[in-house]
Amino acid sequence: MDHLHELAHQAKEAAGKLALYDTATKNRGLEAIAMALEARQGEILEANDRDMAQAEQSGMRPAMLDRLRLTPERIAGMAKGVREVMALPDPVGEIMDTVARPNGLHIRKVRVPLGVVGIIYEARPNVTVDAAVLCLKSGNAAFLRGGKEAFGTNLVLAGIMKDALTQAGLDSDCVTFLDDTSHATADAMMRLRGFIDVLIPRGGAGLIRRVLETATIPTIETGTGNCHLYVDESADVDMAVEILFNGKCSRPSVCNALETVLVHEAVAERFLPAAYTRLEACHVEWRGCERTRAILPGITAATEEDYAQEFNDYILAARVVGSLDQALSHIARYTTHHSEAIVTADEAAAERFLREVDAAAVYVNASTRFTDGGEFGCGAEIGISTQKMHARGPMGLRELTSYKYVVQGNGQVR
Amino acid sequence: MDHLHELAHQAKEAAGKLALYDTATKNRGLEAIAMALEARQGEILEANDRDMAQAEQSGMRPAMLDRLRLTPERIAGMAKGVREVMALPDPVGEIMDTVARPNGLHIRKVRVPLGVVGIIYEARPNVTVDAAVLCLKSGNAAFLRGGKEAFGTNLVLAGIMKDALTQAGLDSDCVTFLDDTSHATADAMMRLRGFIDVLIPRGGAGLIRRVLETATIPTIETGTGNCHLYVDESADVDMAVEILFNGKCSRPSVCNALETVLVHEAVAERFLPAAYTRLEACHVEWRGCERTRAILPGITAATEEDYAQEFNDYILAARVVGSLDQALSHIARYTTHHSEAIVTADEAAAERFLREVDAAAVYVNASTRFTDGGEFGCGAEIGISTQKMHARGPMGLRELTSYKYVVQGNGQVR
Repeated sequence: MDHLHELAHQAKEAAGKLALYDTATKNRGLEAIAMALEARQGEILEANDRDMAQAEQSGMRPAMLDRLRLTPERIAGMAKGVREVMALPDPVGEIMDTVARPNGLHIRKVRVPLGVVGIIYEARPNVTVDAAVLCLKSGNAAFLRGGKEAFGTNLVLAGIMKDALTQAGLDSDCVTFLDDTSHATADAMMRLRGFIDVLIPRGGAGLIRRVLETATIPTIETGTGNCHLYVDESADVDMAVEILFNGKCSRPSVCNALETVLVHEAVAERFLPAAYTRLEACHVEWRGCERTRAILPGITAATEEDYAQEFNDYILAARVVGSLDQALSHIARYTTHHSEAIVTADEAAAERFLREVDAAAVYVNASTRFTDGGEFGCGAEIGISTQKMHARGPMGLRELTSYKYVVQGNGQVR
Repeated sequence: MDHLHELAHQAKEAAGKLALYDTATKNRGLEAIAMALEARQGEILEANDRDMAQAEQSGMRPAMLDRLRLTPERIAGMAKGVREVMALPDPVGEIMDTVARPNGLHIRKVRVPLGVVGIIYEARPNVTVDAAVLCLKSGNAAFLRGGKEAFGTNLVLAGIMKDALTQAGLDSDCVTFLDDTSHATADAMMRLRGFIDVLIPRGGAGLIRRVLETATIPTIETGTGNCHLYVDESADVDMAVEILFNGKCSRPSVCNALETVLVHEAVAERFLPAAYTRLEACHVEWRGCERTRAILPGITAATEEDYAQEFNDYILAARVVGSLDQALSHIARYTTHHSEAIVTADEAAAERFLREVDAAAVYVNASTRFTDGGEFGCGAEIGISTQKMHARGPMGLRELTSYKYVVQGNGQVR
């Protein structure tokens, strides 16, 4: 057995035990992790300094460096996050449905963990802790493969979590960190059938594509958001401007940020100049259709590619449309099925938008930035699913579970 | 655009309309299909005769020929099945959850169709109708690819359903039958990202493997069942014999049939001879471990492979175990996570079995043959999922849906 399969085998064994731990045991493990992160801050910062130095040398972009950097405050934030997950209700064992059949069979649908959850992610070390503790609370063994830039930090974080689990009397293999960042091993991980039950890639489009091409284990696609705001003819223009500003400027690097605004021709002349002025605060670069440019002369012409891409930056595509229908077909063409919004005072238009737009979250008169486990009231999330199978939108503890049918009889045969 | 992509594009367009049809419209389409199957029985039988003649010539096994054969009774049964699906509640639009957030946002989790559901299946023509109508009722466009042996029959069945949909005023592309049985086209279908939302292969292990290797669209694995019965030391031996007989002999070709019996050593001498005698009625061939053969001399020795395979035949593997723990580890090693049963009078043993065995359905004192949508009280099923992601066990209308978050605000920003 090679090293990868040995780790996978241990993770699977641990998952069998973890599925049977009660809530108190899992919470004891989580509290031990939170305390260990605080107590061993020095080691974490040291490893992170080395990763940072190497990343700077290799010319990593400032935004990426910032995601890699840990500080005492950020480590305290991680520990706080662990305790928040502790406080969430345990989904395992929940009776989802009960059926008493005429033949006397008694059937319960009971929530159970998925088993081993694989997570492949990029340079953010906080994912190592977030993902591990969400898996732990939901009864799943976490099998983690992080990016090479954060390797040293991740290795220390995983070691601290494993030590804490052992001290708390849990199986330390409930958390596995793959100590090999080669692409070949990542590919092999995506094919660990019989060991990993579900794979969740967290990262850019390149990673997602690689997983889809390579994986033979069930996968949940996450995180690409080409989100639209449609400003209807009946829209409150001031509200629309604020929702656009929030969607584009509050945090442009995240998946629920806006990328394109569509404006009904009847309000374009009022809306566009006001929006342009408001977004100047963040030096937003506009790329517009011809009709947008007639109202906002001097902005760049939008290409097909501009409408299709997630800028993740202070750039906005804009288009004037003649009708709600035109807006709906633009969205149908370019959506990544993440979050889409309409601003309107017309109930019929709102109703059509909500029904016809095919996305994880559809909004009337609110910002797409709310698509988030915390904002939806379901606690921390492991990612935002953009596929329709299994889970859609923010994935919290419940979305990290499956179920089984428990059937009790007294000799029934068919 | 090639022919496959053209069909896929039409299916996707139809799915957009179908998602918005109300229950009455969908039921009108279903009733039209049921009536057309009855009215055009002659055409169906003619096409089936040709498929049967060709299959006989090519030397198809009798069991397979029987699956391929349609008769007036079987066609009437198909039409009856369509009307049963009509009578099931429509899952689309169901409000699964409602949250009022402190910031005034009102969030509803609403059940929606998956979109386009791809189904790749083998020689049984009834799947063409079953799958299409389950998809239709749950608001999904069905994209069907059947085996070449039933091609003529399937083509006629699909044509009849499309005509019926048109007559009832629905988009006939709600049902697509791929008129090309090449492997290359099937492979291309498994990679129709952006067109097919979920792929459900229905067939043998070879097909499932091919799909897992090839597909880039989300897939639900179905139908392999290496099911076990464990006869505990406290078991009612007569009950255990009847449950074994039912599980092995009532329909050995199906996935919820039993393949292996595990017997606690304390009851082996009472149970095995009685079971052997009962199963002689169906000439069941036993393959046992050494301890089984000490009690049932003359039976074949079981190999590792016998324990690992799904016989789908009147063959049974048997093993005497020293404890519940040994039974649990045998099951953990060989299970395909479909259905597993214990016969016991000991509540603690039952509880451990139900908790620790990782399968879609776990039984105490009842036959594994009950793992079935109808028997579980949820109506017709499109297959039995053996994976943990999305749906587990029998997949009915609800399991053919996803959900979206519908968020209503009055200007909220984050």
